Amino acid sequence: MSGTVSAQEIAERLLRADRILILTHEKPDGDAFGSALGFQSFLRSCGRNADALFPAALPRRFSGFASDFLTTLTPAEIRAAYDLVLLLDCANPARIGAGAEFNPAFLSTFEFLNVDHHQGNCIEGAFNLVDPSAAAASQLAAEIALASGREIRQEAATFWLFGIVTDTGSFRFSNTDGRAMRIAAELLDRGADLERIVNAVYFSKPRNQQEFEADLLQNHVRSAFGGKFVYARLPDELFRRHGFDMRDGEGIIDLLREIDGSVIAALIYSWNGVQKVSLRSKDAAYPVGPLARSLGGGGHAMAAGITLESDPEQVERLLLEQVGTLLKKQMN
Amino acid sequence: MSGTVSAQEIAERLLRADRILILTHEKPDGDAFGSALGFQSFLRSCGRNADALFPAALPRRFSGFASDFLTTLTPAEIRAAYDLVLLLDCANPARIGAGAEFNPAFLSTFEFLNVDHHQGNCIEGAFNLVDPSAAAASQLAAEIALASGREIRQEAATFWLFGIVTDTGSFRFSNTDGRAMRIAAELLDRGADLERIVNAVYFSKPRNQQEFEADLLQNHVRSAFGGKFVYARLPDELFRRHGFDMRDGEGIIDLLREIDGSVIAALIYSWNGVQKVSLRSKDAAYPVGPLARSLGGGGHAMAAGITLESDPEQVERLLLEQVGTLLKKQMN
Repeated sequence: MSGTVSAQEIAERLLRADRILILTHEKPDGDAFGSALGFQSFLRSCGRNADALFPAALPRRFSGFASDFLTTLTPAEIRAAYDLVLLLDCANPARIGAGAEFNPAFLSTFEFLNVDHHQGNCIEGAFNLVDPSAAAASQLAAEIALASGREIRQEAATFWLFGIVTDTGSFRFSNTDGRAMRIAAELLDRGADLERIVNAVYFSKPRNQQEFEADLLQNHVRSAFGGKFVYARLPDELFRRHGFDMRDGEGIIDLLREIDGSVIAALIYSWNGVQKVSLRSKDAAYPVGPLARSLGGGGHAMAAGITLESDPEQVERLLLEQVGTLLKKQMN
Repeated sequence: MSGTVSAQEIAERLLRADRILILTHEKPDGDAFGSALGFQSFLRSCGRNADALFPAALPRRFSGFASDFLTTLTPAEIRAAYDLVLLLDCANPARIGAGAEFNPAFLSTFEFLNVDHHQGNCIEGAFNLVDPSAAAASQLAAEIALASGREIRQEAATFWLFGIVTDTGSFRFSNTDGRAMRIAAELLDRGADLERIVNAVYFSKPRNQQEFEADLLQNHVRSAFGGKFVYARLPDELFRRHGFDMRDGEGIIDLLREIDGSVIAALIYSWNGVQKVSLRSKDAAYPVGPLARSLGGGGHAMAAGITLESDPEQVERLLLEQVGTLLKKQMN
């Protein structure tokens, strides 16, 4: 990838800019949310003009943390208001969460920084910091801020810790390492409010979600290959019945992952007229990232996703075939 | 407390001893298990004779990690075989998990080290390292080993990380801080097998436990004080029906804690003919530690327990009264 730069250089470029637009991927998860709002907070505390943009609705559990962000901007407004675009946690131009006009051609008319931790990031920013060994984009964000030598205040520290906590499943997923732990420690030392984060992410489950989960576990769990593959097809009706939305579903797949003996877990559900597949692996010998990429999706070795224009039955058949091949390949 | 010493001094005393018996509290949880077996492994790798003793059956999810420990020893055997006793994670002489003969009078005939992180530890060891600001006894154990300058091998690192992960709810509970994170990072750097730990603790839920949990959530959850107190009385019949044992129940109370709006969570269940109460708080303004101590129990501000010789109805009434007073006191 051309234009690969250090955390130090990203920090210098950000602090030289005056008017910074922060973008991330569509359907923002905790790391997209935390990395973007952490940078908005940090850069403003450094005296910069910085705005984060999330055009899609955010998950309910994010709502207590921030309302100060943009939700719409036209290309003309952006051209008038910003001179640098910082793109976070987004591996693919088609997933930039800011409308079709935000294509690489448009973005290349700005000074453009691409900071991400996804393997296979194919965004060509003018300056790229893509480090798949980082547990979260929020970790890279904190590393950039630490490299700047500027003060990291409590608000930015809390946002970045939010991203690290959600992307590591609170330090349980295989992307957790000593480096992620030490950055989390730096953020805690600066007052990051872990209690508020974990209460929002793990300990604020509404009654309808609990009922949705019980229904899912009792009626929709299937398994194959001797229990090594556990998956669920979630019909639209299930969401309607419990008034539950997959926007709030970041942790749902863990209900399958936590089942004894499961190695690969998958959820299949409809989203804006297409089929979405979430995939998780519990064993590095069976990575789901390559499987997802071979079907046009993306992600990490142990956590990946696919979007398919198909119907749920076909998606299920395709998955069974592909996961079966993956499990068999490794056993030989 | 007399005889308070540093991690360095504990390390020196351990490495001067030849034959070390490692004890912990009854009904061992992940931190008792991890701190004891981590020390057994570390001290053996330092050329010492060291044995951990757990007289009670261990939780199912510990079983993949260790079988090499003692389960019975008479006082005479101990006197013949050991010259130092290391007691870990145990705040109260009555809770030493090694039979009634292990009273302080007996233990005081040995060189005796008391290493713990519980507020109100009332064990008088010859040498005490009691630090309630440590997230786990396993964290103190790792700090002692680091202070020794000796190599910490992968096996000991994994045991101590096991204790830190279980006592912090994987870095989600309020005892998590930068110091705990940095010790976890040191252990990860030494090859601690986090994947195996989290798979055992969080991602190996047997089908009967999942059914037990669904039954509990659907049929036994009660709440009071506008949903701020959420609790469940678990009848023996519930355990029998699902073949589930509270020995494997370390995470069950989190099902109540995770409910939106709950501030204090409690489980009430029978254990060997007495009533046990587990208590958790989600808000430092409502600590459950003092409440537990006022009823003869113990623990931390945010996680505590009580044993009562009473019946479940009376325990429930008592709890409602005490928790109500606690919630009211703070609101005024």
